[in-house]
Amino acid sequence: MSRRSKSARSRKDEYHKVEQTPWRRFRNPHPPIDILSPDQLDAIHDSSMRVLSEIGIKVLCGRSRSILSAIGCTVDESSEIVRFDPGLVAEYVAHAPGTAELHARNPAYNLTIGGDEIIFSSVMCPPFANDLDRGRRAGTFEEMCEFVKLVHAINAVHQAGGGGFEPLDLPAETRHLDVGYAHATLTDKTWKAWSNGAERARDAIAMAKIMMDFTDEDLIARPVITAPINTNSPLMIDTAMAEGIVEMAGVGQPLVIAPFTMAGAMSPATEAGALSVQNAEALAGVVLAQAVRKGAPVVYGSYLTNVDMRTGSPLFGTPVFAKTTWASGQLARRYGLPFRSSLNTGSNSVDAQAAYETQLCLWAAVTAHANILFGSAGWLEGGLSGSYEKLILDAELLQLAIESFQPIEVNKDTLGFEAIRDVGPGGHFFGSPHTLARYDRAFYHPILTDTRNYETWNEQGRDSAEHRANRIWKRMLAEYQKPEMDEAVDEELRDFVARRKREIVARLAA
Amino acid sequence: MSRRSKSARSRKDEYHKVEQTPWRRFRNPHPPIDILSPDQLDAIHDSSMRVLSEIGIKVLCGRSRSILSAIGCTVDESSEIVRFDPGLVAEYVAHAPGTAELHARNPAYNLTIGGDEIIFSSVMCPPFANDLDRGRRAGTFEEMCEFVKLVHAINAVHQAGGGGFEPLDLPAETRHLDVGYAHATLTDKTWKAWSNGAERARDAIAMAKIMMDFTDEDLIARPVITAPINTNSPLMIDTAMAEGIVEMAGVGQPLVIAPFTMAGAMSPATEAGALSVQNAEALAGVVLAQAVRKGAPVVYGSYLTNVDMRTGSPLFGTPVFAKTTWASGQLARRYGLPFRSSLNTGSNSVDAQAAYETQLCLWAAVTAHANILFGSAGWLEGGLSGSYEKLILDAELLQLAIESFQPIEVNKDTLGFEAIRDVGPGGHFFGSPHTLARYDRAFYHPILTDTRNYETWNEQGRDSAEHRANRIWKRMLAEYQKPEMDEAVDEELRDFVARRKREIVARLAA
Repeated sequence: MSRRSKSARSRKDEYHKVEQTPWRRFRNPHPPIDILSPDQLDAIHDSSMRVLSEIGIKVLCGRSRSILSAIGCTVDESSEIVRFDPGLVAEYVAHAPGTAELHARNPAYNLTIGGDEIIFSSVMCPPFANDLDRGRRAGTFEEMCEFVKLVHAINAVHQAGGGGFEPLDLPAETRHLDVGYAHATLTDKTWKAWSNGAERARDAIAMAKIMMDFTDEDLIARPVITAPINTNSPLMIDTAMAEGIVEMAGVGQPLVIAPFTMAGAMSPATEAGALSVQNAEALAGVVLAQAVRKGAPVVYGSYLTNVDMRTGSPLFGTPVFAKTTWASGQLARRYGLPFRSSLNTGSNSVDAQAAYETQLCLWAAVTAHANILFGSAGWLEGGLSGSYEKLILDAELLQLAIESFQPIEVNKDTLGFEAIRDVGPGGHFFGSPHTLARYDRAFYHPILTDTRNYETWNEQGRDSAEHRANRIWKRMLAEYQKPEMDEAVDEELRDFVARRKREIVARLAA
Repeated sequence: MSRRSKSARSRKDEYHKVEQTPWRRFRNPHPPIDILSPDQLDAIHDSSMRVLSEIGIKVLCGRSRSILSAIGCTVDESSEIVRFDPGLVAEYVAHAPGTAELHARNPAYNLTIGGDEIIFSSVMCPPFANDLDRGRRAGTFEEMCEFVKLVHAINAVHQAGGGGFEPLDLPAETRHLDVGYAHATLTDKTWKAWSNGAERARDAIAMAKIMMDFTDEDLIARPVITAPINTNSPLMIDTAMAEGIVEMAGVGQPLVIAPFTMAGAMSPATEAGALSVQNAEALAGVVLAQAVRKGAPVVYGSYLTNVDMRTGSPLFGTPVFAKTTWASGQLARRYGLPFRSSLNTGSNSVDAQAAYETQLCLWAAVTAHANILFGSAGWLEGGLSGSYEKLILDAELLQLAIESFQPIEVNKDTLGFEAIRDVGPGGHFFGSPHTLARYDRAFYHPILTDTRNYETWNEQGRDSAEHRANRIWKRMLAEYQKPEMDEAVDEELRDFVARRKREIVARLAA
């Protein structure tokens, strides 16, 4: 930690000329909504324990099967199925800590995953980029960098998602290095690292160490990486994901293990059944992580929605999502684990549907005490697009939620009895000294909300929130300022990326 | 109650061909969000008691001042200001019941205002009508009838708002009679009656009695009318509103007394100050109602939002709304009163803003245990328009909320262990017998949500939720079926309207 004594600090308050609420860590101080009775919670737990012990999880990664076998799981090598004794599950899940600290390049952006804190983490890497000017298309690396800049600039986004969309102009084998470098340099917030496969995970770890000037011990003591892992529902963990768990747990980086149990497709068409599958898969991942390293931080993930049974299409922001998110929060708390949820929409454009589906997820997740919300900004079209306009809509939704959960200040001054007396019945508070003293700081000021009256709006072209969002992201991108980085670190990162690309290309050519 | 033994029943399940979730009364079984500490709640209560006792409320109606004077309020006739002793307030507020039953023409649509129940009541009477085909315009009576039909047809709307928009083609003096007749005949749900002024209130009461074949005693025992009353913030009750309170309380019809305290304009630019003003005004109205008739049902109303301090424009669906709605719920519960909130948006079109502002109100109000939500369907443009497309957006938002708060069913069948075992790791639940058995009833089916994939949506014209809503309301209107009504009742209503019109016209001519 010695190399750079005067580490770069973002000047975030200066460069956000698009007016926003200030960056702040977000806590929901109210009790969560508990939808399940204690008996119902037990029943889902018990059923998932039967799933783990009687049916088992197919683990495609031989190394992971060996690790699980070594702690006492029953492994059938021919079917690759691992069965977990419920007592063993309880023992290993208990090793996982209740919270994980996340260290950003800029310490002002440090986060805690767990407790009452809620982290908004932007969309990770859908296949397509989308904005009103350029349409829906395969995104390039240059465009992905724009997206990272916007995510950096939005105060309500706590964590960069790790892409925005795939930079499809770059070779698939080395793309993760460019994405990692972009995140290390274009933002000084924390970010999600591509963790699918041992090689990608190790590269992310190496880059995090360079970026932070950390040793292995530093990294374990002060985690930097958020590592997303999806199981392959139903009841499977593929090799890339298992390797990600093993590598990240080995150096104590927070793993977020989320089954994608779309009810009616990858899990039963019942909430209780889908939760049972989810719970079995998530806990299997937690056990694997704890088998690698006891106390490795790990987050209980839920990504449970349902198909429309008439059309087979996935639906997002549904009652099933709300109900199972509340239930998943109860499950996570039962195991003493932080809880991951997400914000989703199936809409193809930034219309009313995009808003209501996303916001239903948001309020359900916040009232469920979800601790980290993936897809919190930019998620569109069922996760197939990273949308620039949606980033701005989400900035407003997130701000609104954060500010709604701030306390009410009650004191002699805010009660304002004298002001009420002085204005009197039938009077007006616009010109009151009590009002004037608060003129420029009272109340929430929106990003996207249009306050023009109908006549003005009509004369000026009747634009929708989607079109306003388009203007706002362009302004925000123009105003972007890159956070400072020590040139030596930047160079070391660039050298690492170049060396690793050479190695990978050489290996592929061989 | 003898005249019509086989009262008409709606065949609501048959005629809703636009697919909806079924009508159901809505309860939030979870504890409300309490944002204020007990000390903070006390401080706001205490400050509002000082407002009532030291500043007082200007009551423009002489008859109401006399009623208040008679129970021991201090009345200054020259200033028309009434001061309320805190002990007297406590005594009279305690007479108000905690719940009120509401009787609809179709008993299947009966409601309870209070407890855990949440009633969605559609928009009342903005000045303008709005839809994509005909634009924003002064609405006609014929169009208002369309609106009432749609409100009747939407299962998630529990109560008709009492207009949709003003029928500006009808004379102002007699318009309330036509609006009342339209509601009595085009829907058999409950509805809000125009209650501003003694004459309008008495006409509403007379029509309710005819519609239900009720005596005065019947009406008191089984309330029919929901009577909206707005105080004139700050600290004023005008004659029309005071008369509405007196008339409706006299026959025990539920009064909903809501100050419109826009913080920074009609109340201080602080949440605590605005809540103090609201509380003083609402309780003054409650006391007046109880002074007229002890035990008259009365609802504690909040309609608190804020101006954008930079522009002076009102903002809706803001953090101020969420926070003060939670606080208002605490105040209402402190006094043992049902609680009214509302759904609002300032958007000029049915875009993302309309959705997120409305839905923020919705989730804040539901988690605040609001018991009746005004403006629940069709409210647009800061309350200046009743919008046909917004009705459909709101139908989706309301359905989503209602269904999200239904319990999760957990039993051997829904846990589906055998199905999970039979499908096994890596399998698929689409073809599973467990899924097929639930094919047509599993999960929420949306009204407005588009489940087409991007390619299909793009080819078919890239329509937004607003454009889909336009098609849906037209389909719903075409499918509308008028609930049956005994011809004798219909005739008696028509006769009453005709007679009252003659009387009013004659008086105006005199």
